[in-house]
Amino acid sequence: MTTPSTMMALVKESPGPGLTYKDVPVPEPGAGEALVRVVNASVCGTDSIIYDWEPWAERRMTTLPRITGHEFAGVIESVGHGVTGYPPGTRVSAESHYFCGSCYQCRTGRREVCRSMRIMGVDADGAFAQFILVPAVNLWKNHPDIPDRVATLQEPLGNAVDTVLAEDVTGKWVLITGAGPMGLMCLAVSKAAGAYRVIVSDPNEYRLELAERMGADIVLNPNVMPLSGPVLTATSGNGVDVLLEISGSSAALHEALPLVTPGGRVSLLGIFGGEVSLRLNEDVIFKKLRVYGITGRIAFSTWHTVSRLLSSGQLDMAPLITHEFHISDYEKAFELMRTGRCGKVVFGV
Amino acid sequence: MTTPSTMMALVKESPGPGLTYKDVPVPEPGAGEALVRVVNASVCGTDSIIYDWEPWAERRMTTLPRITGHEFAGVIESVGHGVTGYPPGTRVSAESHYFCGSCYQCRTGRREVCRSMRIMGVDADGAFAQFILVPAVNLWKNHPDIPDRVATLQEPLGNAVDTVLAEDVTGKWVLITGAGPMGLMCLAVSKAAGAYRVIVSDPNEYRLELAERMGADIVLNPNVMPLSGPVLTATSGNGVDVLLEISGSSAALHEALPLVTPGGRVSLLGIFGGEVSLRLNEDVIFKKLRVYGITGRIAFSTWHTVSRLLSSGQLDMAPLITHEFHISDYEKAFELMRTGRCGKVVFGV
Amino acid sequence: MTTPSTMMALVKESPGPGLTYKDVPVPEPGAGEALVRVVNASVCGTDSIIYDWEPWAERRMTTLPRITGHEFAGVIESVGHGVTGYPPGTRVSAESHYFCGSCYQCRTGRREVCRSMRIMGVDADGAFAQFILVPAVNLWKNHPDIPDRVATLQEPLGNAVDTVLAEDVTGKWVLITGAGPMGLMCLAVSKAAGAYRVIVSDPNEYRLELAERMGADIVLNPNVMPLSGPVLTATSGNGVDVLLEISGSSAALHEALPLVTPGGRVSLLGIFGGEVSLRLNEDVIFKKLRVYGITGRIAFSTWHTVSRLLSSGQLDMAPLITHEFHISDYEKAFELMRTGRCGKVVFGV
Amino acid sequence: MTTPSTMMALVKESPGPGLTYKDVPVPEPGAGEALVRVVNASVCGTDSIIYDWEPWAERRMTTLPRITGHEFAGVIESVGHGVTGYPPGTRVSAESHYFCGSCYQCRTGRREVCRSMRIMGVDADGAFAQFILVPAVNLWKNHPDIPDRVATLQEPLGNAVDTVLAEDVTGKWVLITGAGPMGLMCLAVSKAAGAYRVIVSDPNEYRLELAERMGADIVLNPNVMPLSGPVLTATSGNGVDVLLEISGSSAALHEALPLVTPGGRVSLLGIFGGEVSLRLNEDVIFKKLRVYGITGRIAFSTWHTVSRLLSSGQLDMAPLITHEFHISDYEKAFELMRTGRCGKVVFGV
Repeated sequence: MTTPSTMMALVKESPGPGLTYKDVPVPEPGAGEALVRVVNASVCGTDSIIYDWEPWAERRMTTLPRITGHEFAGVIESVGHGVTGYPPGTRVSAESHYFCGSCYQCRTGRREVCRSMRIMGVDADGAFAQFILVPAVNLWKNHPDIPDRVATLQEPLGNAVDTVLAEDVTGKWVLITGAGPMGLMCLAVSKAAGAYRVIVSDPNEYRLELAERMGADIVLNPNVMPLSGPVLTATSGNGVDVLLEISGSSAALHEALPLVTPGGRVSLLGIFGGEVSLRLNEDVIFKKLRVYGITGRIAFSTWHTVSRLLSSGQLDMAPLITHEFHISDYEKAFELMRTGRCGKVVFGV
Repeated sequence: MTTPSTMMALVKESPGPGLTYKDVPVPEPGAGEALVRVVNASVCGTDSIIYDWEPWAERRMTTLPRITGHEFAGVIESVGHGVTGYPPGTRVSAESHYFCGSCYQCRTGRREVCRSMRIMGVDADGAFAQFILVPAVNLWKNHPDIPDRVATLQEPLGNAVDTVLAEDVTGKWVLITGAGPMGLMCLAVSKAAGAYRVIVSDPNEYRLELAERMGADIVLNPNVMPLSGPVLTATSGNGVDVLLEISGSSAALHEALPLVTPGGRVSLLGIFGGEVSLRLNEDVIFKKLRVYGITGRIAFSTWHTVSRLLSSGQLDMAPLITHEFHISDYEKAFELMRTGRCGKVVFGV
Repeated sequence: MTTPSTMMALVKESPGPGLTYKDVPVPEPGAGEALVRVVNASVCGTDSIIYDWEPWAERRMTTLPRITGHEFAGVIESVGHGVTGYPPGTRVSAESHYFCGSCYQCRTGRREVCRSMRIMGVDADGAFAQFILVPAVNLWKNHPDIPDRVATLQEPLGNAVDTVLAEDVTGKWVLITGAGPMGLMCLAVSKAAGAYRVIVSDPNEYRLELAERMGADIVLNPNVMPLSGPVLTATSGNGVDVLLEISGSSAALHEALPLVTPGGRVSLLGIFGGEVSLRLNEDVIFKKLRVYGITGRIAFSTWHTVSRLLSSGQLDMAPLITHEFHISDYEKAFELMRTGRCGKVVFGV
Repeated sequence: MTTPSTMMALVKESPGPGLTYKDVPVPEPGAGEALVRVVNASVCGTDSIIYDWEPWAERRMTTLPRITGHEFAGVIESVGHGVTGYPPGTRVSAESHYFCGSCYQCRTGRREVCRSMRIMGVDADGAFAQFILVPAVNLWKNHPDIPDRVATLQEPLGNAVDTVLAEDVTGKWVLITGAGPMGLMCLAVSKAAGAYRVIVSDPNEYRLELAERMGADIVLNPNVMPLSGPVLTATSGNGVDVLLEISGSSAALHEALPLVTPGGRVSLLGIFGGEVSLRLNEDVIFKKLRVYGITGRIAFSTWHTVSRLLSSGQLDMAPLITHEFHISDYEKAFELMRTGRCGKVVFGV
């Protein structure tokens, strides 16, 4: 198979809503780079934000055109100078955060908060294309037992793993606010890691059904009744040991924090619409909570965990992948995601 | 020395501002209790809140009259049935939080967040008196090298130890917002634990001078200029590794959080006036901060640390104890504290 | 049901091998104590050591006669002065380590290594009897979904939980040396906590079959071939992330330590026959291993975890309880245990 | 200053004892490399082992000739292709462990136990020369307040930092077995990090005097009397919270382990002469100790800590650097080290 000179790609061409599916040149790998032929790519909430040209996208994406997408699985097409260990045909995915390697964070083992981070599909051309250029240090070899349509989920699953495992959950009560794909992934990881009972809350009944199918012990719709009643009843009045906030809803956080048992733990992954007002005294300080902000993935410890849990079947992503489209049907995909009546959406490329 | 039948005590007699210094009966120790002759007691911000009858006090102190005060040092006068190991004359202080021993928290090694906590001087008669009854399990034997006027500070120093040492600070940049007695104690503990540089901010110049005398490397008045300039300059643009929020000022927290380096740590000890609005995305989540609510002390690990650091001279409380009064001069003490022109105020009893 | 004045009990009457099943007085609960009617008790390796009067028993058990046994489940018969919350009929088990509460360890949150520890069935009368006296602070209320014959296993399961969860095992390769009841419990806990693959080694084929039935991914008999070949093959040459040494065999530890990946973790629970010779340079220091000695259980954090994992079905003890006897058949039980052709042996009392 | 074509270097030319001081070519930096003009280099115990051609050296150093030495400070002379941020004249030291970057350990944040580690001065030409080639990723910029003769000590100080700070030492009793340069560095770090009391033991009185000068609270010669008496007396019978084993003497470890308080911590840095026989039951398992093998340094978290503690004066290396020689006097240096009557020996190059 010869590498073609052009490829189809989903491109943000200019400021404003929408994306364009068009023919663009296939890039060539420079020193330390690999060219990957994309097989599957999956759609993240961030992609919707870029599609809709929400403020975050507008602020962040100053250089256009830009090929979007940052979750994928594919095979090595070719590599640039100095890259070894990745012969053509090697099945790979990639860490989507490109680290600088020289800032204080990178030099102290915290590359996931690199001060000069560049993000695939945002600050560099992304994976919604037939080919993508990736720094070789960001490559991850896919396990033979993980098919490409699942392997593309390793990137967001990494966030879920870091969210859940910020502290041990074995034998613990876990409350997850938000049952979008990230919340459902946190549910799957919590169960795989031996959580005692996982409660999932979301105002979207479709998603609550998904949560039940994926093993949630209790699902709650906060629009139907306040969480506090069922949560406190279930936990004998103690509240949950662990709160995983994935919704990015300040109302959800407000409602959930009082339900964390004193001395418990909170992980924050959801991105909020603006500032969040908190009762720090009652909800954090007097209760001696530990609160972890979560972002990115620990490369590559987290990837090892994800790959193992997927390849062993400890994580089952089958119920989560509710829809698959060819990438050319991207408009249907983004429309569907807007309805909230889907789990994870995966593209064939 | 015979135990008298009455004693002088500082009593909140009825709802409303003020305290009464009056003669009350000396209590008798029941089973598992000890009667302690108080030598020194020190004044906490909570005592001012009770004196001024602020909303927290009004909500919490429903049973009056109540003898106030919860920081003290004294000697065992007598003990009740079943108490061994504390012969009369033994020099003691006491953990001021009385644990129930049977709630989920107490049964899982987190007594400092006991669900049925009773606080000395708030829910039970306190230490601003010639004698105090204490559960024997709360007693702490004072080290011979720590005089009573310093030993009374062990209780608040415990909060400072837990605030500072929630994670290791050795070789780290530390920013402390708030230079009241608690902030200054955190400064002393940070320096003793090998912090690289400690920056202290407070709008009160008197307190900044105290901070300098106690070893602060940089003192900043946020009313004179924003913290960000000098903090970022000093830290080569990286920001501090550790933020200790002691002021209870939401403005201070708002100003300080962006100055924490990505991947850094925050301890929250200060009590806020109400809800606090936070930029959780930028200041916590994208920066992957770890935030610890701090309350109480770990009995008695924390007390061991405090006692050792004091008795060895690693902590020097001399500059902090700026004023000493006989307890009968309590009104002068509370008035002085209102001015902010003092460090820690200690009573002779 | 009236409490009888005498009961049958399994007693070590005098130095030397063997136990006597005989009629003894039923004790009465003093202040802070509870009398429990035993329903089931299970047999620990320590009981065999006492039965056989091995050196450890001879050194330790200086006061005879002594009722043996320290794993049980039963119901509250009556309680002594000051004990509340345990009405007659309450289903309970108990932490078998009686803490002093006043040593350096007890006062710093490490009661499981109390300096004046007294052990049920060794230093105080035990559970191989129709009734047992227990300090009320040691009581644990059994979950309604855990039957007594399983609830008696909570005590040793606690050791397994602390052994496995000394650090997180989710997504990790685990090697367990020793497939006696403790090793098999560690296997069950590892799987429940999301270990990636668990390898179990033991020279006893009967036990390896049990291990397979309980979910071991790989079972190895070190007498058939060295562990290193299959372990390194399975782990792509990296070795295991976690070693749990349960056998107390220095040969096993010697063989297993080199198979731990550099930067990995070891928990030591097995008790060795004497001194153990280690290649500390190659096997621990140059590999930067973390080695945890494990003993007792963290009361009651560990008990919460055990109770939850059992009541939810995350731990299934059915395959492990291979034999049940009436306590009067104790000689058969000890004989069986000597053959190694059993899992856990449970007494009806 | 032009770079000369030849330089003087201390070379292991062929198997067997001794080193040769001779003229060799100055290497040229390839891609990703830097050439550093060495100003100071310090002598490690490993260098003595190489000088004396002990078994470890013979086994490990199969490619000769080899320039020795791995602790140094100097200035950038020139850099190869792709190296930025290090203009000529930049003052630097370097991490002496060259990581492969692709093994399981390197990919999971544990480069200090890289499976394909190459060590400066052992597997690659070292720092006992006028110039040294170093991979640019291993470079460390020296703080302006740390002179070169002290900056060369950052490498071994890194080991000391990781040894001491494997867990927090603030307010803790610390016992250090071995008062050679590494033990003394651990002493300095322990004091800087707020250890309560540091006990140092060594059979060499010269070194004990150094330890006293560097702030040891108690120094003990195990040849004069057993450690247990004074250690248990000083610690009220509890033993020490922390043991740092630096001597590599199995007798020292045997004597010290029983002196660690139950629930305490041990760091092992010293390299032993062979296998070590341990009472694992009594000394590790029943006491629930945590034992950390220590090797290398965490690049570059540890370097940050070291640089800060040195530049602030929290660590004072003045008493430790007892002798300085021009590198041409290397035979005197190695002879002196053999006598044990020295602290750290530093070369001018």
